[in-house]
Amino acid sequence: MEYFEDLTVGDTREFGAYEVTREEITSFAGRYDPQPFHTDEDAAEESMFGGLVASGWHTAAMTMRLLVEHQLSGSGAMGALGVDSLRWPTPVYPGDTLSVRTEVAERDVWDEDRGRVAIEVTTTTQADQTVLSMIGQVLWRRR
Amino acid sequence: MEYFEDLTVGDTREFGAYEVTREEITSFAGRYDPQPFHTDEDAAEESMFGGLVASGWHTAAMTMRLLVEHQLSGSGAMGALGVDSLRWPTPVYPGDTLSVRTEVAERDVWDEDRGRVAIEVTTTTQADQTVLSMIGQVLWRRR
Repeated sequence: MEYFEDLTVGDTREFGAYEVTREEITSFAGRYDPQPFHTDEDAAEESMFGGLVASGWHTAAMTMRLLVEHQLSGSGAMGALGVDSLRWPTPVYPGDTLSVRTEVAERDVWDEDRGRVAIEVTTTTQADQTVLSMIGQVLWRRR
Repeated sequence: MEYFEDLTVGDTREFGAYEVTREEITSFAGRYDPQPFHTDEDAAEESMFGGLVASGWHTAAMTMRLLVEHQLSGSGAMGALGVDSLRWPTPVYPGDTLSVRTEVAERDVWDEDRGRVAIEVTTTTQADQTVLSMIGQVLWRRR
């Protein structure tokens, strides 16, 4: 179990990959973000994206899947207060493969049992395009 | 079509509702956020939430569904740059019904074709608990 005390500012990790399919993009968007540039190829070509792109919330969800699988699972992470400065600098297209880099940016004691850890998260494609960046504010179990 | 020029700082809207089921919570989390307090009732009871709760990303996705359906669809919204100050002050439990309030907080010209609109979004339950707040940074078509 990785406790709050085991984390140091500057710790970095890199992991992935998550392969993004057209079917998953339109299925997620059909339910949660039914804007035409996420659900309809023809409308997407007319949009500022020039083609079908994943919902930014879908990109965040896929990023979370990689975070849980490779960093949070089995750790002392107890849940998040929120996220700061979430940005989608370039969109995710069908066929992209995502990977994630994290860096511990801040850590301080929250209460008797928990610490707060600010983690910078960057999600990139196979072509090293950044598709998401954010700072997660996570509560972490103290030893 | 609602253009950038039709929006005024201070404009507010309220809409909903979205009924949250246990099945949807565990299904979303099983794919995108498989932490035990989102997927496993027994483990969730031992967690700081005291029971099964929706992934924060799921709460954001359900909020987005309401935003698209009631505000963005058919408007000049062209996509988002990102989101600031995303917070999940209380969790979403199975059986909750979500509604959303928006307020235009800032608007300025981005380029020849587009404006940037900062929209404060607040998602609440039937018991008026705030489960999500954020500021969306949206690009909006100019007339």
